[in-house]
Amino acid sequence: MSRIEAPRDEDTETTGSLRDRLLTGLPAEAVLTDPDVTASYANDMASFCDAGTPAVVVLPRTVEQVQHVMRVATELRVPVVPQGARTGLSGAANASDGCVVLSLVKMDRILEINPVDRIAVVEPGVVNAALSRAVGEHGLYYPPDPSSWETCTIGGNIGTASGGLCCVKYGVTAEYVLGLDVVLADGRLMSTGRRTAKGVAGYDLTRLFVGSEGSLGIVVRAVLALKPQPPAQLVLAAEFASARAACDAVCRIMEGGHVPSLLELMDRTTVKAVNDLAHMGLPETTEALLLAAFDTHDPAADLALVGALCEAAGATQVVPAEDAAESELLLQARRLSLTALEAVKGTTMIDDVCVPRSRLGDMLDGIERVAEKYALTIGVCAHAGDGNTHPTVCFDAADPDESRRARESFDEIMALGLELGGTITGEHGVGVLKKEWLAREIGPVGLEMQRAIKTAFDPLGLLNPGKLF
Amino acid sequence: MSRIEAPRDEDTETTGSLRDRLLTGLPAEAVLTDPDVTASYANDMASFCDAGTPAVVVLPRTVEQVQHVMRVATELRVPVVPQGARTGLSGAANASDGCVVLSLVKMDRILEINPVDRIAVVEPGVVNAALSRAVGEHGLYYPPDPSSWETCTIGGNIGTASGGLCCVKYGVTAEYVLGLDVVLADGRLMSTGRRTAKGVAGYDLTRLFVGSEGSLGIVVRAVLALKPQPPAQLVLAAEFASARAACDAVCRIMEGGHVPSLLELMDRTTVKAVNDLAHMGLPETTEALLLAAFDTHDPAADLALVGALCEAAGATQVVPAEDAAESELLLQARRLSLTALEAVKGTTMIDDVCVPRSRLGDMLDGIERVAEKYALTIGVCAHAGDGNTHPTVCFDAADPDESRRARESFDEIMALGLELGGTITGEHGVGVLKKEWLAREIGPVGLEMQRAIKTAFDPLGLLNPGKLF
Repeated sequence: MSRIEAPRDEDTETTGSLRDRLLTGLPAEAVLTDPDVTASYANDMASFCDAGTPAVVVLPRTVEQVQHVMRVATELRVPVVPQGARTGLSGAANASDGCVVLSLVKMDRILEINPVDRIAVVEPGVVNAALSRAVGEHGLYYPPDPSSWETCTIGGNIGTASGGLCCVKYGVTAEYVLGLDVVLADGRLMSTGRRTAKGVAGYDLTRLFVGSEGSLGIVVRAVLALKPQPPAQLVLAAEFASARAACDAVCRIMEGGHVPSLLELMDRTTVKAVNDLAHMGLPETTEALLLAAFDTHDPAADLALVGALCEAAGATQVVPAEDAAESELLLQARRLSLTALEAVKGTTMIDDVCVPRSRLGDMLDGIERVAEKYALTIGVCAHAGDGNTHPTVCFDAADPDESRRARESFDEIMALGLELGGTITGEHGVGVLKKEWLAREIGPVGLEMQRAIKTAFDPLGLLNPGKLF
Repeated sequence: MSRIEAPRDEDTETTGSLRDRLLTGLPAEAVLTDPDVTASYANDMASFCDAGTPAVVVLPRTVEQVQHVMRVATELRVPVVPQGARTGLSGAANASDGCVVLSLVKMDRILEINPVDRIAVVEPGVVNAALSRAVGEHGLYYPPDPSSWETCTIGGNIGTASGGLCCVKYGVTAEYVLGLDVVLADGRLMSTGRRTAKGVAGYDLTRLFVGSEGSLGIVVRAVLALKPQPPAQLVLAAEFASARAACDAVCRIMEGGHVPSLLELMDRTTVKAVNDLAHMGLPETTEALLLAAFDTHDPAADLALVGALCEAAGATQVVPAEDAAESELLLQARRLSLTALEAVKGTTMIDDVCVPRSRLGDMLDGIERVAEKYALTIGVCAHAGDGNTHPTVCFDAADPDESRRARESFDEIMALGLELGGTITGEHGVGVLKKEWLAREIGPVGLEMQRAIKTAFDPLGLLNPGKLF
């Protein structure tokens, strides 16, 4: 897919005509062209990702308005970059020069919550936490919980196939998307999937859109599967004298047939960063802190079994939370990890390599070697139960040499992940950040078929050009 | 996708040349051309589905041999119909005239079972029950359990995205396929997905292949997710004076936040058919028998709660099984349903309409009206917890008028399912049987995009032509 070049020769005139055409189907307040304003829509939260200057930002409120935007874009051959809350970490929502930024945040209605069918029907701009709370009032549970859940949108979650802390038991966003309404590149509306529990009528286009980073169509409505709300989870913290011992505990827990609702790891760098930021009083002498939780009917009994496995793996200390409040404090510490690591040197590159959990120890040892080699601080927090690590390179962006080393170490970590049978991205996506690496992971035949699908849906290459491949 | 016409003018000569080319990369015993033998590979188990006469049946044992078959097919422009155990119910595995039937049953090795990573790596010809038993020896569980599980293959399960009795708690085959090796139409090998718990590197091609009925490529290896083996399930049987009351119980159970491992319905026709066939002593006075099961740590407690909900919905009798043996008998009765209904009049058409479970009562009432209108016996068994009904039209295939009415009633049931917000197929697939109905369900835009994907993967239209659309 060659990158679409936006018209450049007569920028102002072109933008003017684009704006005029957009205004034939959108109210004035939904079409932003003030450069100071539109510039603020240029980036998501990824480091080291190029972003262009949008020509226009549109904020539609209806499906018809989205269709209008895509029809105008097709007519004028203008690229369109769909956006949610821009909390992504791969540059997938970054603007292209001269593009229309299509922000879905104003389409934020929860259209239906059905406790018998266990589904919710939502617009893409609904914030994850807002949905979670709304379904909770019906005794229901929408599991996917990315760290940004208080601000990120369901549309963004679908676009990047987001994960979170819940995945070890409940899986990722993809597993909760039953059906979609999608506006195609040419403005036509297509429905995929179903609102039933099962369905196999034709190719699974729903799943194809999940994780497609806005490159195949614009999701304007989603039917989401819900689960019954489980009991509150109880958390245990186990300290280890080495990351490898903690990883060994993870393997023993999973091999033992346990189904924790959370199984997270924070290394010493991360623990210290969280303490520095939030004075949480986490144990700083530990090399690795493992958090395990159960949301079963007798979580204390499950934690006792898992605590024993941690001790067998060499845990120096095992502390089960006494109650929900203590559990929540431990979760807060984990959720603060990335923010805390960012405070270490001002900038971070957050990697997202997922390896088979049996290789997690090798991965963590390898990351330590990379940190030494490049003389960098790399903190690791991980969804350990999934083998999904977030090695986070902390660096001073004002220091060119350190920045170069950060980028190189980041790449070396991905190479290590592939070597261990893993993937370059467990849940953050490819975006701009990992384009070259996608090709390395899936190989030339896979890449060719990915591009063929892109061409089938978006022959003019207007939808989020320059992302993925 | 226009149907590929196989060379017809000089059938014998063409088949001879095809056979010779195949034999350059396959041993003689893997290439069958005796018409009596090849004819036995013409059909799966669906009624009313056209099947052609294969030119050759090949039984490869290696990935390289499958690649060879596809290269020859591409070179000679011969259609290829992939097959597993041919237990499918939609004609998806039916031969085309002059095709190569590519049977994967000899590729039946379980390559790996990994209890830490909770995965199995298998060839496509592995029988579902063989995998289930093998992983069971490691304390692991492969949930998908179609009725044909003792004979059907994992490759066939992937091709049709099979379900089973477990889905209400554990979901369908699609949710257990992490990665695939696929031989493309031109013989190239492509890997999709991963062996990690999570991964979002590019479009989800794995999921695209699941349920694609062999029309996009040949699955030659699969990485499957496993779960820890749950405790043995305990089953309860509840009798109702009307199907609607049983459906009301299903809604109350699901609305109440329960997570049964099985929630099945058999109507009076089905119960009687099972008794007639197997003398199981099921209660024949009931209009609907509901089976609920739990595989939790205290299933009796869960069954007590669900039994009370059944009584509140009007159950005339609620009988929990006392032990595993009684539970297994009830499951056997349910598993015999389709076979038993086939014995009623000699032939059946088994439908597979799935509706939102809140509409299950409307669906069953509607099916009864259809049976009356066409003066037919239509037995219904259903994965009630999923809203997935199998209305089974019993008829005498030697009676042309009854056969016509059977086909018309079958279509009317699908129309009813769509009207109630459902899908024409919950787990059996589209194949030949429901081609026209796929178009009605997904509409012209959806159909166009499905065809575009088919063309992207199989530009010559060689893979299982004439299926799906």
